[in-house]
Amino acid sequence: MQIGMVGLGRMGGNMAKRIYRAGHECVVYTRSQETIAEFVREGMTGASGLSDLVAKLTPPRAVWVMLPAGEITESTVAQLQELLVEGDCVIDGGNTFYKDDIRRAQVCRDKGLAYIDVGTSGGIWGFERGYCLMIGGEKTAVDRLDPIFKALAPGRGAIEATPGRANRDPRAEQGYIHAGPAGAGHFVKMIHNGIEYGLMQAYAEGFDILRGKSSPKLPEAERFTLDLADIAEVWRRGSVVSSWLLDLSAMALAEDANLSNFTGAVEDSGEGRWTVEAAIEESTPVNVLAASLFARFRSRQDHTFADKLLSAMRFKFGGHVEPPASG
Amino acid sequence: MQIGMVGLGRMGGNMAKRIYRAGHECVVYTRSQETIAEFVREGMTGASGLSDLVAKLTPPRAVWVMLPAGEITESTVAQLQELLVEGDCVIDGGNTFYKDDIRRAQVCRDKGLAYIDVGTSGGIWGFERGYCLMIGGEKTAVDRLDPIFKALAPGRGAIEATPGRANRDPRAEQGYIHAGPAGAGHFVKMIHNGIEYGLMQAYAEGFDILRGKSSPKLPEAERFTLDLADIAEVWRRGSVVSSWLLDLSAMALAEDANLSNFTGAVEDSGEGRWTVEAAIEESTPVNVLAASLFARFRSRQDHTFADKLLSAMRFKFGGHVEPPASG
Amino acid sequence: MQIGMVGLGRMGGNMAKRIYRAGHECVVYTRSQETIAEFVREGMTGASGLSDLVAKLTPPRAVWVMLPAGEITESTVAQLQELLVEGDCVIDGGNTFYKDDIRRAQVCRDKGLAYIDVGTSGGIWGFERGYCLMIGGEKTAVDRLDPIFKALAPGRGAIEATPGRANRDPRAEQGYIHAGPAGAGHFVKMIHNGIEYGLMQAYAEGFDILRGKSSPKLPEAERFTLDLADIAEVWRRGSVVSSWLLDLSAMALAEDANLSNFTGAVEDSGEGRWTVEAAIEESTPVNVLAASLFARFRSRQDHTFADKLLSAMRFKFGGHVEPPASG
Amino acid sequence: MQIGMVGLGRMGGNMAKRIYRAGHECVVYTRSQETIAEFVREGMTGASGLSDLVAKLTPPRAVWVMLPAGEITESTVAQLQELLVEGDCVIDGGNTFYKDDIRRAQVCRDKGLAYIDVGTSGGIWGFERGYCLMIGGEKTAVDRLDPIFKALAPGRGAIEATPGRANRDPRAEQGYIHAGPAGAGHFVKMIHNGIEYGLMQAYAEGFDILRGKSSPKLPEAERFTLDLADIAEVWRRGSVVSSWLLDLSAMALAEDANLSNFTGAVEDSGEGRWTVEAAIEESTPVNVLAASLFARFRSRQDHTFADKLLSAMRFKFGGHVEPPASG
Repeated sequence: MQIGMVGLGRMGGNMAKRIYRAGHECVVYTRSQETIAEFVREGMTGASGLSDLVAKLTPPRAVWVMLPAGEITESTVAQLQELLVEGDCVIDGGNTFYKDDIRRAQVCRDKGLAYIDVGTSGGIWGFERGYCLMIGGEKTAVDRLDPIFKALAPGRGAIEATPGRANRDPRAEQGYIHAGPAGAGHFVKMIHNGIEYGLMQAYAEGFDILRGKSSPKLPEAERFTLDLADIAEVWRRGSVVSSWLLDLSAMALAEDANLSNFTGAVEDSGEGRWTVEAAIEESTPVNVLAASLFARFRSRQDHTFADKLLSAMRFKFGGHVEPPASG
Repeated sequence: MQIGMVGLGRMGGNMAKRIYRAGHECVVYTRSQETIAEFVREGMTGASGLSDLVAKLTPPRAVWVMLPAGEITESTVAQLQELLVEGDCVIDGGNTFYKDDIRRAQVCRDKGLAYIDVGTSGGIWGFERGYCLMIGGEKTAVDRLDPIFKALAPGRGAIEATPGRANRDPRAEQGYIHAGPAGAGHFVKMIHNGIEYGLMQAYAEGFDILRGKSSPKLPEAERFTLDLADIAEVWRRGSVVSSWLLDLSAMALAEDANLSNFTGAVEDSGEGRWTVEAAIEESTPVNVLAASLFARFRSRQDHTFADKLLSAMRFKFGGHVEPPASG
Repeated sequence: MQIGMVGLGRMGGNMAKRIYRAGHECVVYTRSQETIAEFVREGMTGASGLSDLVAKLTPPRAVWVMLPAGEITESTVAQLQELLVEGDCVIDGGNTFYKDDIRRAQVCRDKGLAYIDVGTSGGIWGFERGYCLMIGGEKTAVDRLDPIFKALAPGRGAIEATPGRANRDPRAEQGYIHAGPAGAGHFVKMIHNGIEYGLMQAYAEGFDILRGKSSPKLPEAERFTLDLADIAEVWRRGSVVSSWLLDLSAMALAEDANLSNFTGAVEDSGEGRWTVEAAIEESTPVNVLAASLFARFRSRQDHTFADKLLSAMRFKFGGHVEPPASG
Repeated sequence: MQIGMVGLGRMGGNMAKRIYRAGHECVVYTRSQETIAEFVREGMTGASGLSDLVAKLTPPRAVWVMLPAGEITESTVAQLQELLVEGDCVIDGGNTFYKDDIRRAQVCRDKGLAYIDVGTSGGIWGFERGYCLMIGGEKTAVDRLDPIFKALAPGRGAIEATPGRANRDPRAEQGYIHAGPAGAGHFVKMIHNGIEYGLMQAYAEGFDILRGKSSPKLPEAERFTLDLADIAEVWRRGSVVSSWLLDLSAMALAEDANLSNFTGAVEDSGEGRWTVEAAIEESTPVNVLAASLFARFRSRQDHTFADKLLSAMRFKFGGHVEPPASG
């Protein structure tokens, strides 16, 4: 099968390679000529721009856009909507907000184009392990591109089968699903990331308590100096909290149990925010997912204005002065 | 009436004065001779120690201990349990954990002593405005000391009466209540402080959003530069969020809307913690009270180990590097 | 001064009356002829529709729209934008989302109209106590309508002045402020309501713990049966947690300390949600405000699907069966 | 090696079997004669009581107590402290509070006994997969019993090794660790469970949003009807949120995506509570772990008193009446 790939960064580049190595034909484009040349050396076809890329693909075309969510993706999709013709398909594999997909799919539909949104998980491990794909869009287009999705997905691997799935969509066991109409793929990916924030924060808080257990502020008889790397490791075997995020934590803690290469300023991306907003739209309580998001906001500030107002009130009603920080 | 006062700090000293100015007799003791001398100059009787204080009081005695919660209060109460005799009364007016009151009251009961715990609110304003008192202990002892409590309490003042209280305990409208047996006074005060944390945090978060609305990170058309001092002031009049804590916030913000005298490291005392623990004992969900407590813990750290572990996981799965802090 | 009032519900009707009683002229319109007739009997001028209302006002006109936020307000403002002429002014006094104000103000500006958004607090008490007003819009229009705002606002009343406000805008002490350009009024009101949710939830959780302290599940020696009405009352005097919301709680608890007229399904309106979204836009952590919102979502469900999934996981890993509810 | 096992319930029984099948000798005791007979048929030695069990073991003895945490464990350990002699060892494999271990270990030490606390994870799957063991106690005793721990633990299995562990304790990779002195085992297990609550709640909230996305309250164009079973399944392959808890969720959702066998009343055990309390002792913020605990408390109530007070306040300030529930 043939695919056009726009964007050859960490994600797009590896995905193109994984597709290519599965025997498919890739026409690639990105801003840097050097990067394109590198992929051409691997055997792919380079394009000098979007129209060249479209020209080099045989109809019905499929162009996978793998760019940072936001303006650059928006304008690339808009250009492709002009360049492509009836029967062609645009795929947005980035982290686009699902309501943008719904809007764009309508524009595509009016022009006879198919629009597919793909949420992908797997990070820098995806090239080797495969990417978990959550796909939204019209059935016919999604079915037609099945070989591409199959090539990207991890496949069954060594993971044990879930009982009772005999009559269910076998694609889920291969690591990809057709979640619903346009937008559904990115919506499911968005919630995936919301959950991810919650899982990460749960481990983070737990290890923080473990580490704090050696604090000289605790009664001496109740202090423990715990080996966080060994604890992470042992939980990987037979415990209820085993997970891939724990595997990664075990790696990081084995390297340096103090994590001294990290300051603790934690970025967040759109998905965590949109997850909380989606919950609010549905009137669904999400204390854990929201608290996980707020922990990241907080991590990027030294002190909040909120904290200062607390101090000011305490001073006003009780004459309390502030303690030195850290503690 | 006559009372012994042990502890003449910011709280105890002002309470002694308020009691004395209401026409009662005060025998006072604290570690510093100078401080005692100052109160003697006001007309009170000084004592050279706990036994001298007990000796200078006429049975049935009442000794009010107004010391920091913890060991010093514990040992003072223990000494008084030895020095006082049947019919006398020990009052702990500090911020003692209510389970300690329950334990101590049992010891007192065995010796024929009364034990009263008084939670007080009012801070540095109490001397003028009066102290809100939440009292635990046996009815006879509490009733006997009513003149003292009345002297300390704010009285009706200009505050409008609550309809429908005709047949209820009139003391509540004077600003003091007999909440229940020993421990009940401090328990009610503890929850009072738990609520206080929640109220403070609600204002703090709200003003933080107001302040952040001028951030250059927001779209220009949606930025506002708001006058926090005027907003606090206007909410004092006719709005649903008017309160004494808002009055204090309005004062602080009128002095300096940037609160630049405060770093934002916020202390917490036992009550906020015990409130969450009491909720856990009852299986009562308290998301707001707990989050308020945690905000204070967080305010005293630059970065948590939890934050670092988040960063470490993000690096491991996605190769993400940390952003610079603040933002 | 003269004002047109559209919408004569609980809020709009009382506001018209308060304006009228202050000596201003009111031309009123609402859907119900009967309601209009009632206001005409009070001395106001009735209008048969929006164009009649506009016709009955002398330029430069000011029309105050006091309708439920959403479509009805939107379409009324749109009609007025057509009917009014250069120099006139539309005022939206409802609970409109501030970004809608920003958009509408631009449309008005293009037509030479002024647009003012007013957030009001005070509920059903406002008619007597006055309404706290948070106003957004252009200075000239806001200044011109000052007599109307002054009539609606509570005025200084018996509330003690905040020290240090000598050189500040005196309107804040009268209970109204010009917060900023169009949208700023509703933005400040929105945050006001976000804070309100937080304050309410703090009291709610605290009283829940107090009530639960009599639970037979606690050790007998640690149980207290507390009088919630008296506790609410006493805290109104001299305590740090005194507030208007506490006054109202004291009323409700004095009527019935079991609150048995209420089931506990709690509505939320747009402002609480928008507050959390505004915080997310600013990357401001708001654990308390968000938890307060989620408590309301949760209050309207018997069980969440989330709860069921917890039970399902527990069954799968541990064979745990569910306990009976309420506990 | 030889071990005494007290308690043959779901956990103790399977552990005895796993130890026995690894070639060790087991002397077992539980209240039910029938149950003992069943284990005797498997080849183990039955005991008629604790003293018989002690008599049937060769010094230095090791008795593993596997009973519900609380009084029954406490009194059994106390009896064993009387029956055992210098050089013997008591092991508490239940879910005991770690401060109880610290206290008991001191008593044992005074008598020349060793005391070991073992936190175990693995649930009903442990018999087959092995139990993850977190062990506290003196090194010599822990080392002596290594064959027993090794028999219970899962071993390396097919789980990939964590890089950089060459010079670290190899036991962690076998699924057991010596965490520290007495109490450390249960402390680590306690935090394990605290994390478990957080992870579970993160998934639960996420799936709740996914399910709610089909709600008729949302705009029609933004609704999706998502297949939760397929989503859980696909996330097991290559996604960042893969975990054993997700595997279990996938099983449960494959059986019935509505989870209609569950009402959603969710039990909690001591560990989740103690985790929050340990965090409070350390001043460590744990918004997610606490919120997860509170979600369980909330799940067991129809409505909270807190909710009712919110409704009461809303009625008092705004005349608002309650909506019907479920919304």
